[in-house]
Parts: sequence; C-alpha cells; structure tokens
Amino acid sequence: MMERITIIGTGLIGSSIGLALREAGFAGTILGLDTSEAELTQAREMGAIDGALAGDAELRASDVIVLAVPVMGILDWMGRLAPLLSPYQLVTDVGSTKLRITEVAAQSYNGAGQPRFLPGHPMAGKESGGAALAEAGLLNGATWLFTPLNEVASELEVEWRGWVAKFGCRVIDMEAARHDVVCAWVSHLPQMVATAMAALLEDEFDQAPEVAGDFLAIGGRALREMTRLGASPYSMWRDVAMTNTDAVGATLFALEQRLAHIRENLKTPELREEFQRANRFRERKQPVR
Amino acid sequence: MMERITIIGTGLIGSSIGLALREAGFAGTILGLDTSEAELTQAREMGAIDGALAGDAELRASDVIVLAVPVMGILDWMGRLAPLLSPYQLVTDVGSTKLRITEVAAQSYNGAGQPRFLPGHPMAGKESGGAALAEAGLLNGATWLFTPLNEVASELEVEWRGWVAKFGCRVIDMEAARHDVVCAWVSHLPQMVATAMAALLEDEFDQAPEVAGDFLAIGGRALREMTRLGASPYSMWRDVAMTNTDAVGATLFALEQRLAHIRENLKTPELREEFQRANRFRERKQPVR
Repeated sequence: MMERITIIGTGLIGSSIGLALREAGFAGTILGLDTSEAELTQAREMGAIDGALAGDAELRASDVIVLAVPVMGILDWMGRLAPLLSPYQLVTDVGSTKLRITEVAAQSYNGAGQPRFLPGHPMAGKESGGAALAEAGLLNGATWLFTPLNEVASELEVEWRGWVAKFGCRVIDMEAARHDVVCAWVSHLPQMVATAMAALLEDEFDQAPEVAGDFLAIGGRALREMTRLGASPYSMWRDVAMTNTDAVGATLFALEQRLAHIRENLKTPELREEFQRANRFRERKQPVR
Repeated sequence: MMERITIIGTGLIGSSIGLALREAGFAGTILGLDTSEAELTQAREMGAIDGALAGDAELRASDVIVLAVPVMGILDWMGRLAPLLSPYQLVTDVGSTKLRITEVAAQSYNGAGQPRFLPGHPMAGKESGGAALAEAGLLNGATWLFTPLNEVASELEVEWRGWVAKFGCRVIDMEAARHDVVCAWVSHLPQMVATAMAALLEDEFDQAPEVAGDFLAIGGRALREMTRLGASPYSMWRDVAMTNTDAVGATLFALEQRLAHIRENLKTPELREEFQRANRFRERKQPVR
C-alpha cells in the first residue's frame, strides 16, 4: 500500500498531481521539493503537498517518487536516486520525451536489487508554468502515456496506474521510441511552429512598431491560438529539443516542405487537394476534451 | 436614412450581419440572396433576413448592398452592380483581401454618376461556414477594417459605419495594400499553416492507421488549436490565395526559413533566442476578446 509520495518539482504538473491525488482520495503523506522556495511554498499553501522533503532519509521512506522537472533534471535525479533506493520503491516521471529516460532506466532500475522505474508522460499543460496555475482538473480527461520497461508490473506500479486512472486520465502504453515520434508530431512540432510564428511576428513588429497594436487587434482568435504556445518557457523545451532532436527535426523538415508546396501552388488546383486533406483530418473523431 | 439593406450571400458572415443589424435596432427591410436555397431558408427562419431578393428592381431599391461572398464572387457582383445602381446607393463588402476589390472599385464606383463603394473586412469567422452558425455576437468585439477610396465619406457610408460600431466592432481604416500585407501575417498565414499541419498529419495517419486514434487522443489542446482552421473551406481560401498571392507567399517563405532555423539550432543556444522572441510577442498587450 502506497502511503508516502514525494514529488520532485512542485511546478504546474507536480502540484497538479498532488492536488489530483488529494481529490482522488489519497490519504497518505505527500512531500515536495523544488529549487524555487516560492513554488514550494505555493504548493504547500494550496494543499498540493503536506510539506518540504527534508533529506535523503525521507526519500528512502517514500513509496513513490514522482519526478516532475524538465527532462534533463529527470535524468539527473534518476542517477542520484538509483543507488539510494530499494527494490520496494517506485520512481516515475512526467517527462515530455521518453527514449533517453527509458534507456537510462533500463541500466539502473528494475534489475535485481534495483528500485523500480515506470516512465510516464501526462499529455497536459499550459503555456505558462508554476504551482499557482496548478489544478486537479488539469489531468482530468488528459491522456497519460506510459512506456514500461517490464511486461509484468510491480504492485506499486499497478497502484500508481490506479491513481492515474482516478485522476480521470486515459492511459495508453507504448514503446518509448514510438512515443517520441508520436509526441514530435502532436506536441513538439505544434510548439516549435507556435514559437516560430510568434518570433517571426515579433520581428515584424520591431520593424513596424506603429502597426504592432493593429496586428494584435486585427488578428483575432486564429492568431491567438496559433501563437499561444509562444509563451512556453525555453527551460522545458530545451530539454525536449536536446533529447528528441531527430524526430523533432524530421517533423519540422516535413512541415517546411509542406509549406513550400502550398506556396508554390497558391494558384493551382493542388491547393484544393491540401485543403481537402486538412478537412479530412479535422473530420476524424476528435476527443471531447 | 438607410431603410432597405440587401445581403448577397447569407452564409456565416452575411447572416451574422443581418442578425447584428436587428440586435442593434435596425427597423428597415433586410433582403437576402444566396446560391443555396437551404442557406437562404435558414437565414430567413433565424431572422437574419426578411425574405429573398426577387430581382433587379429590388436591388435598385436597396440603400445598401452588402456583398458577403468569397472574393471572386464579390468582384463578379461589383461588375454586375456598377451599371445597375445609382450614386445614391452604397455597395460594401466583407472580403478577406482588399487590394483587387479596391482597384476595381476605383474604376467603376465613386465617380460622377456612379454608385458608392466602401471596401470592408470584419475580422470574424469560424472554421465552418453556413447560416446555421451565424450569430450577432460573432461581430461583437471584432475588428472591422475599411479601406476607403475617398477621403470624404458619403452619408450612407457614415450611417453604415455607425451600424458597424453598434455591432460592437472596433473600426480601423487602412490602405488596401497595407491591409493585404497585415492580413497575410495575422490571418492568411495562420490559415495556411493550420492547413499544412492538418494535411501533413492526415498523410501520417494514412501511413499508420493503427495509431490514428492515439494521435488524436494524445494531442490534446495544442494539436486541436494548431489544426482547428484545417476545417476551413477551400472555396473561400482559394480566392484569398488568388488575390493575395505575393503577400501570402512571402509570409509562407519567411516561416519556412524560420522553421529551418529552429531545426538547425535544436541543440544550440540560438533556440533560446527564438523562445525569448516568441515570449516577448506573447507579452505584448493582447486584445481581451
């Protein structure tokens, strides 16, 4: 039975997990750790954690440790925790890429005498981070991906998956390599496109400051939506770019070619084909949320 | 005093204008015309128009004629109406590009003995068209651009602008050429990017149908937002591409280069610069709506 959970990184996702655990009825202890004292205080004040993790003894007393920091931080913590923990403890994470994490886990976790590791990735977020924006509902209706290393799950893994289901998440298991390719398409590419569009418009504004206000007012919903993710922090996406470079690069290149194709066919019937393909995509069954 | 208004094209925008006129207190007659009998019936049933335009006599009896069809259709109607109408009638439009329309207007309108023409463009819409989705509120809070040909507005122009203000629109006047460049950035480029992304993902799905459902479920809000406009109809955007080819092509080419720049810098500090530029864009004052 899971009684003590530690959340490393009490930002948007980490604190939302703490809140979701409470809302789902978790009655045990939740400790937290964050490099930012303000984030930690915020997380405690909103009830996402009971208090701050005091030291290694409390890590060794945790049933589950949730790594909710950017990917490179997760890799650092995996190295630090592996020799510290016992086989009766579970480490899981919420990192946006899974191949590197799963490879490292295969070396230092899940073997004889080693702690368990279950790589995970809730597909939830906001364009701005921080505990202050955390909410249990952020995870409700989201898809939570796992890229398990072992065919047979440990008892703690089964229990953790049970809590995730209670958060209201749809759980999908997939291979880590496949995860990174799929997420490049559906998450990392949209982020990079929004960043590119926002950065491009920022440069346009710098060259024509007198119309900057007009641009924003004129744009409306389409512009807001297509650039919303431009607010996303570099700190998180740097790690995605570092650990999923090939897949992200491939999707970017494919989109560059697609845009060039449209540009070269603005006056030909091929533009109709592109719109019809796009229409078909949008006619596919979309998730309700 | 404006007493008879005719709306050519009773789809989403045309019918929304009819409804907004009523909500703003317009007590005169509103007639409509549409190539689709179903759209016309829908528009009448929801109160956007009083009835169907019966013939040229009713066109000649209209104070204002609103052209709410795609751009090429607007150009056709401008040619048809110019010899039919008198200097005491106003034609205005809602087309997404303004340079061609304004050039044609300069030839056949606003001269001695010619009817008046006021080129307009409400920055409002949905990814799907049709009268059934029309609502007065669609225009409330939107920006309505005008690219007037004359420095001095006629009485009917002043009155029409007054109604647009009563719809809740923010009115901005600009040069037609500038309009088309600004709209290429804030409207046409976002549309083409959403179309390209949706078409690209549709092709990915065709190659891996077994994960199509996963893609959609996994994607979440970011994917939905970045591809929402993929549902937009070719019929409208063909005319935008045909009449704003250079500006749209230039913005597409600029974005292709920007994406290539990001792709080549996924592991360099230049990625940080791009995210910071994008962050600055999103920190600019955004319109509330």
